[in-house]
Amino acid sequence: MKMEKLVGERFKNRPSDCVIDSHALMVRGGYMKYMASGIYSQYPPLRRICRKIEQIIREEMDAIDGQEVQFPVVLPASLWEQSGRYESVGSELLRFTDRNNSPMILGMTHEEAAVHLAREYGNSYAKYPFMIYQFQTKFRDEARPRAGLIRVREFTMKDAYSFHTSQEDLEAYYDKCFHAYERIFARAGLRETIAVSSDSGMMGGSLSHEFMLLTPIGEDSIAICPECGFKSNVESAECITENHTDGACEELQLVHTPDKHTIEEVCTFLNMPPEKSCKAVVYQKKSMGDYVILFIRGDLEANETKLTNFFPNEELIPASITSESGLHAGYIGPVNLNVNKNTIILYDRSLQNAENFCCGGNKEEYHYTGLNMSRDLPDAEYHDFAKATDHGICPCCKQHSLSISRGIEIGNIFQLGTKYTKSMDMQYLDQNGKPQYPIMGCYGIGVGRLAASVCEANHDEYGPIWPITIAPWQVHLCCVRSDDTDARNYADELYEKLQSQGLEVLYDDRKVSAGIMFSDADLLGIPVRLIVSPRNMKQQVCEIVTRDKTVQKQVDLDSAVQETMALVQQLLNSVNDTASR
Amino acid sequence: MKMEKLVGERFKNRPSDCVIDSHALMVRGGYMKYMASGIYSQYPPLRRICRKIEQIIREEMDAIDGQEVQFPVVLPASLWEQSGRYESVGSELLRFTDRNNSPMILGMTHEEAAVHLAREYGNSYAKYPFMIYQFQTKFRDEARPRAGLIRVREFTMKDAYSFHTSQEDLEAYYDKCFHAYERIFARAGLRETIAVSSDSGMMGGSLSHEFMLLTPIGEDSIAICPECGFKSNVESAECITENHTDGACEELQLVHTPDKHTIEEVCTFLNMPPEKSCKAVVYQKKSMGDYVILFIRGDLEANETKLTNFFPNEELIPASITSESGLHAGYIGPVNLNVNKNTIILYDRSLQNAENFCCGGNKEEYHYTGLNMSRDLPDAEYHDFAKATDHGICPCCKQHSLSISRGIEIGNIFQLGTKYTKSMDMQYLDQNGKPQYPIMGCYGIGVGRLAASVCEANHDEYGPIWPITIAPWQVHLCCVRSDDTDARNYADELYEKLQSQGLEVLYDDRKVSAGIMFSDADLLGIPVRLIVSPRNMKQQVCEIVTRDKTVQKQVDLDSAVQETMALVQQLLNSVNDTASR
Repeated sequence: MKMEKLVGERFKNRPSDCVIDSHALMVRGGYMKYMASGIYSQYPPLRRICRKIEQIIREEMDAIDGQEVQFPVVLPASLWEQSGRYESVGSELLRFTDRNNSPMILGMTHEEAAVHLAREYGNSYAKYPFMIYQFQTKFRDEARPRAGLIRVREFTMKDAYSFHTSQEDLEAYYDKCFHAYERIFARAGLRETIAVSSDSGMMGGSLSHEFMLLTPIGEDSIAICPECGFKSNVESAECITENHTDGACEELQLVHTPDKHTIEEVCTFLNMPPEKSCKAVVYQKKSMGDYVILFIRGDLEANETKLTNFFPNEELIPASITSESGLHAGYIGPVNLNVNKNTIILYDRSLQNAENFCCGGNKEEYHYTGLNMSRDLPDAEYHDFAKATDHGICPCCKQHSLSISRGIEIGNIFQLGTKYTKSMDMQYLDQNGKPQYPIMGCYGIGVGRLAASVCEANHDEYGPIWPITIAPWQVHLCCVRSDDTDARNYADELYEKLQSQGLEVLYDDRKVSAGIMFSDADLLGIPVRLIVSPRNMKQQVCEIVTRDKTVQKQVDLDSAVQETMALVQQLLNSVNDTASR
Repeated sequence: MKMEKLVGERFKNRPSDCVIDSHALMVRGGYMKYMASGIYSQYPPLRRICRKIEQIIREEMDAIDGQEVQFPVVLPASLWEQSGRYESVGSELLRFTDRNNSPMILGMTHEEAAVHLAREYGNSYAKYPFMIYQFQTKFRDEARPRAGLIRVREFTMKDAYSFHTSQEDLEAYYDKCFHAYERIFARAGLRETIAVSSDSGMMGGSLSHEFMLLTPIGEDSIAICPECGFKSNVESAECITENHTDGACEELQLVHTPDKHTIEEVCTFLNMPPEKSCKAVVYQKKSMGDYVILFIRGDLEANETKLTNFFPNEELIPASITSESGLHAGYIGPVNLNVNKNTIILYDRSLQNAENFCCGGNKEEYHYTGLNMSRDLPDAEYHDFAKATDHGICPCCKQHSLSISRGIEIGNIFQLGTKYTKSMDMQYLDQNGKPQYPIMGCYGIGVGRLAASVCEANHDEYGPIWPITIAPWQVHLCCVRSDDTDARNYADELYEKLQSQGLEVLYDDRKVSAGIMFSDADLLGIPVRLIVSPRNMKQQVCEIVTRDKTVQKQVDLDSAVQETMALVQQLLNSVNDTASR
């Protein structure tokens, strides 16, 4: 490919709407173009990267006996009604009607379609296990698309669905897929990924893992215990707290706390630490408006995923506290709380055994001190609704060792159980001729997000540093001063020879300055760069440098092809060695 | 791949809703599954076929300097408003709103997206020509999806867009693409394709060609002149007629024609041939309801594409003739026709020089005879609105040599001109620094329709006969009686050896009867079949047969691998030889 003919523009200035580096570099480098919120077109370099990622994924899916299929983008609503998700999923699910007023949706995931495809095939135990997967455009009508390809509305996803006759078989396959994912990310050149247990969300099922690229710009929070290796998305990490006994049990006492609303203000005023306070977080059920009041220790935050899971058929929204509610915003506490019978009161586990806490007085400008939960609210039931915290207690080894990191989710795997096969009535006859529901797993990777994550993990200020396995081209041949006949002739010949050896070469013979040529090359991030120039020609050498600067050498003109091939092979080996470890 | 594990079902009976063979065989063979009207999922064999077709197309597009990109499926309505197509395209364009009530569409073709992607890049003449293409899901909300993958609503299409600075350059590239298309269809194993000139329809532009597979089940009609090689879709073929002069010019005479409504009835009653009659075809403008009356020779049919092109901003619908209209259905003629001023009267060229014709009398139960157009309607303007007919006059060589065939459109190429670059204001600076609009071409192939067309052109009553270049697997290894240890061991070994030679093998070692095994194999249509059986083992041979029965031989057990490789190579060569001719 001649650089001169490469469709796309490269430019110097960081676009003002790009908040993360990978987004800025992929816009500046002519990889993608904004079409609408969360919707992008791909220029040739990104298309090449994505096709290479797809091929890596395809090979690894085939290696664990996956069979590639294809489901439609546009699905009839009736299919999603069978599983109940047509109603249960929120407005991320894009619903519309066709010309005959039939309700349709844009597929955001394809569990229903997978069951639809395999329902008749999987009629006997002898057909199991099997796995089908596809690469397909997905559409999720995200409220807040952001960060370029990290959170988009339209994207290509590899989604895989496995079917099993026992939980053990699912687990064995889940484990295989787990390792296939590790190989995929390693082959794509992402060394910094970890797998964390996660919440199953709208997918249903029990066990699930997310594969995370650890990076400060990630939108997920991950709890990691360096002591025992525990790793979990904060969304699903158990929050463990301790309340120390003081020995002396104070009396409940109403204290005047004028103009003190926040936990910080109240605790400072009362000279108590936040972990000796109880705060109220108030929601409303979207359907009927009923209040849901969560009492939780003042130093902790509510984990909305846990709350959502507690109310599987309700959407909770932040409360609007009216004067008729009987609630006093800023002064709500668990003692002497006067609410109507539809209000739901929840207690987070962090309040269990709380002694001598402060809390709202349920009266304007008053708080209680001396709250003792077991004495004052002996019937309270406690559940885990809190977010795990940095320096908190590890739910696994119970040490105060938890640390919270940020990450981008680059893949996920779910044990789905029989949620879809039951609701859609897919059955097989077991060895005794008895009908059974197959057990499913599902496994997703967003192709574009993976490309952006690799860029995020591998770049400098000048551009991406693509791993050779997914780089748009393997070799970037720069002919500086192509008006020089010697340089030009040598570079032309090199271009032909490298290509005839099966190497993927981008050849820049434009009549531009070396500065422009190299800054464009940096933006394209091709791992091996060859520099032909009049000065090099005089010394009878060709320069070979890698994009990451780990290799910078001059080689004889005659050995340039050999040296390039060896370097490309060495880079390929180095990525693949990591993947096979 | 083990046949035992292949997801999908095969069955014997032709589904009652399949009107064409390829559809029936692809449903019976476990290739595709109905999801909703015009929307299908693909099982592994079809996915493999489509991926191979895509790769052939990709190679040929790259060979003519195409660059693969990707445009979104979901496009903002504003993009299509720029070109005017948001309004002009009918309800095939699926329109909806997203969660923020922004109007969006599902892309049915991507001219606007191509201009959007290339608009800034193509700012100087030096960047031209260039071509970008993609494989992407398209959605066309067809009123009548039919015939399986032949006319669907959702499909994968390769669409390519080229940009040029002169008409000559476009024409040269158009010609290159024309030949690339010939190679693509030949490499996919379709020998029976012809290119015909066609109507540009909603794409705009002037010259266009369709590539057609000639088959009686096709939904397009094609006019072919075996004398001079003229080929055209009937939609756009000029209709040429002659009217002979009788010498004697009759008087206009009102004749009582009770209960004679149709041309046949009237002509029989008056003892005149239909080609001496003038009939009226009546439409209404959809917007305002105004009548459009076309007078045309009684033996011809109106060509609605020509009418649509005559009214670019109006949709015509069949007329509903009310009593207030002043029209007498069945008796409408051009003489003494009493209509309101908004009615449009059109005359087809077939009436030019008409002498002594009969026509409607504009009075219940009356017709005229002795209609002489030049005398009775001296001001009539004539245009070509008629469908070319079998045995009609060739517009090219003017002989009575036209024949009408049926065909499936498997690809199309269009010279678009500046329709999109002008409306979307894409400009480049020419060598004199003057802004100019680039000239575009576009080039489409539907992947699934091509697969179905190949099946339609290559099948017998038992199943498809896939050309080796796109077959789901190259070799089908059948081990009849896999409970026989000798046969089983030999087949297992053969499976490993064939695969290690890089061949794509489907291995059937199921414990099923030879009858089931072979009928399943016929449905999968894999070109080379190896049969291992206890009887063959006794004779120390392995059978090799091709799906089309042109090769049927027994080979030594030891030479089976070599013989298979040679046969596969021979089949590949034979397809590729055709393609390179």
